[in-house]
Amino acid sequence: MPRMLIHSAGQLLTLSGGPQRGRTLGSLGMIEDGAVLIREGRIAAVGSDSELRRAHPDEEGLNAGGRVVMPGFVDAHSHPIWAGDRAAEFEQRLQGKTYLEILEGGGGILSTVKATRAASMEELLAQTRPRLQRMFNHGSTTIEAKTGYGLDFETELRLLQALLQLDSEGPWDLATTYLAAHAIPAEFEDRAGDYTDELCENWLPALKEWWAPNAVDKALPFVDVFCETGAFDLAQSRQILETAKGLGFPVKIHSDEFDNLGGTRMAIELGAVSADHLISTSTDEIAELAASDTVAVALPATPFGLAEAHNMPAKAILDADGLLAVGGDLNPGTAWCENLQLALALACRTLKLTPAQAIAATTINGAAAIQRQNEVGSIEVGKQADLLILDANDYRHLGYRFGINLVHTVIKKGTPHPVAASLHVST
Amino acid sequence: MPRMLIHSAGQLLTLSGGPQRGRTLGSLGMIEDGAVLIREGRIAAVGSDSELRRAHPDEEGLNAGGRVVMPGFVDAHSHPIWAGDRAAEFEQRLQGKTYLEILEGGGGILSTVKATRAASMEELLAQTRPRLQRMFNHGSTTIEAKTGYGLDFETELRLLQALLQLDSEGPWDLATTYLAAHAIPAEFEDRAGDYTDELCENWLPALKEWWAPNAVDKALPFVDVFCETGAFDLAQSRQILETAKGLGFPVKIHSDEFDNLGGTRMAIELGAVSADHLISTSTDEIAELAASDTVAVALPATPFGLAEAHNMPAKAILDADGLLAVGGDLNPGTAWCENLQLALALACRTLKLTPAQAIAATTINGAAAIQRQNEVGSIEVGKQADLLILDANDYRHLGYRFGINLVHTVIKKGTPHPVAASLHVST
Repeated sequence: MPRMLIHSAGQLLTLSGGPQRGRTLGSLGMIEDGAVLIREGRIAAVGSDSELRRAHPDEEGLNAGGRVVMPGFVDAHSHPIWAGDRAAEFEQRLQGKTYLEILEGGGGILSTVKATRAASMEELLAQTRPRLQRMFNHGSTTIEAKTGYGLDFETELRLLQALLQLDSEGPWDLATTYLAAHAIPAEFEDRAGDYTDELCENWLPALKEWWAPNAVDKALPFVDVFCETGAFDLAQSRQILETAKGLGFPVKIHSDEFDNLGGTRMAIELGAVSADHLISTSTDEIAELAASDTVAVALPATPFGLAEAHNMPAKAILDADGLLAVGGDLNPGTAWCENLQLALALACRTLKLTPAQAIAATTINGAAAIQRQNEVGSIEVGKQADLLILDANDYRHLGYRFGINLVHTVIKKGTPHPVAASLHVST
Repeated sequence: MPRMLIHSAGQLLTLSGGPQRGRTLGSLGMIEDGAVLIREGRIAAVGSDSELRRAHPDEEGLNAGGRVVMPGFVDAHSHPIWAGDRAAEFEQRLQGKTYLEILEGGGGILSTVKATRAASMEELLAQTRPRLQRMFNHGSTTIEAKTGYGLDFETELRLLQALLQLDSEGPWDLATTYLAAHAIPAEFEDRAGDYTDELCENWLPALKEWWAPNAVDKALPFVDVFCETGAFDLAQSRQILETAKGLGFPVKIHSDEFDNLGGTRMAIELGAVSADHLISTSTDEIAELAASDTVAVALPATPFGLAEAHNMPAKAILDADGLLAVGGDLNPGTAWCENLQLALALACRTLKLTPAQAIAATTINGAAAIQRQNEVGSIEVGKQADLLILDANDYRHLGYRFGINLVHTVIKKGTPHPVAASLHVST
């Protein structure tokens, strides 16, 4: 198992102290000329370089050479598993086709569902693996990954199985989410209630049965629902999340991406781990959110992908003392982007977060949004040794610079993975 | 000298037929299963794979394996040479500091000028080279590169010398631009007229004298001016461009980025090669632009970098039959982004170009904006063999996907440069 002493020779961001609420967001816990001792793939000590060198004089060293050392990103929201693509639909939108014309032409989410249902396990693995690899190469060491392009019992389960396999392959860690309630499948057109009943009465109990023998020691997946006009209404969303909760699943919600149906308030009431998107969320709901432990997950790459101007009222959530994370929302319809650094740069521009706030929102608070804050998201003794070395000597280059990969090396469970050596000329 | 036969086994985009005006923008000249014969670093034949294989059975082959093959990007607008960074200023803006407070704290363009003046030739080369390498790795095979952070005679000349040296180092080609009229230096505060006189009476003639013995066979650089409130007014901009033109320099302008001072109309009248930014350009000027050979260069990464909502009225320019290019505008103040693919993806979202239009605007029309349309920007017999192999099988993935590097291999003057092999897992 990997062991070594990492010398930052520059800014070491620990993000220590747990999830960062409200205006405490952006506490980097910076140590100048810090060092991190890794034993058995875990963090064994953190401190000043001189102290740690003195205490461990013979430890193998890795010198970051003045580059920023920080925790690996925790991407709290992604849809990385699907087959096919929607490039034609993207072009059609720009040619002026309407949403309805695209749907009639076979486009939209249901075209991805069709391609995904038709794909074998091998095809799904082969198409998803490089996406996870790109996410990892851009610094996401832990990734929340949702099903949701199957929308029938067998395919949703196949997607979950594929994600479990990809989690075991690594080097990344995945936190799986069951999102059979992502859209209404064609065979249930205009019968969202029937689909909801089917999901609640049959699929979720069957999933519960299936999980223990198949996922062995893993915690139950999250159950998530897309509460939105045209998807699941408030009553259906409540039915799904209450059923899931009753079976012991931790729950999440997609709410207020376009219309406010009351999903955020309901999710808070049910103790959801996170509520994601939150663009049309009301002032009252922001106050309720801030008084709860539900993490608000902003997904700025989605309005960007759609060229929409509306974004989460993130500053209001921070002012109210809420818990804010920023995720990537990788998906084939609105945001095919594997680079969480772009979501971070967008968070600075569209949510007006500082680089330090955006870094905390994509590390320790991202971990809180998937209940892994005791395992990853910061550089603290006992945690998994998931670290990044950036190709920059100032953490603010994250946010300030955009569109490229600023990660020099990903260290996962103590093992260094150099990224794209050919991109690193001299500095 | 490199020679080989490149088999696309998929989409080969030639962009043949010269610069694309108005609604012809986006003519990709696609050959399915095409091939390109390279001899002496130039394109010797283009056609169907079967024909070219028959005609050249013994030629060494490079199989793109179904990946898109297209011309290298021509980035028509960049400021890649400077010293230092402005990360602190980026953070201060997000913390609510005003423009004036930042200026008073020593920030803004003049802080970059200060750092650049203090940098040695070696430091300038060492800081600029990796930026050019990142641009190249993201597919920009020809790059327009401006001086403009010296603002005194000696430093502006040192920047030009550095760019000439970096051009000769390659693998990229640079088209140099002299932008001493980028801002008013501190020693000429409130004396923009005096600075303009100094530039016109002394620097430009001296530059003309210096060029021939020092740049040997190279065409004269462009002379550019930042015509804007707080920089050079219309009369000063005219004085600079007329002087430059009288000395034989081809001219360019930055106009209408914030305020419309009439610079675009003036630049058209003077036969400027390009007019760049054009955000507050009037309908009348758009018509005049379209009736001219001046190329409108859109720089969507700049409003993005600044989180501003205003963009070039690109569709109006196309409707009027104008010539449109899209550039990157790499610079340390508003857009530190070496990835022209992000500017292309932004052009789809903020200018509403289709992927095909955005591709033409960053290849053949980018070449037209720097007078290299006979040398690069398309895959046609006789042109330099500057090609890209994308890590995608559909050209529309440029635009649709964003935030990562979709370039698999850059071929420059016939020599393949694999990019970031570690990023390419299976597909």
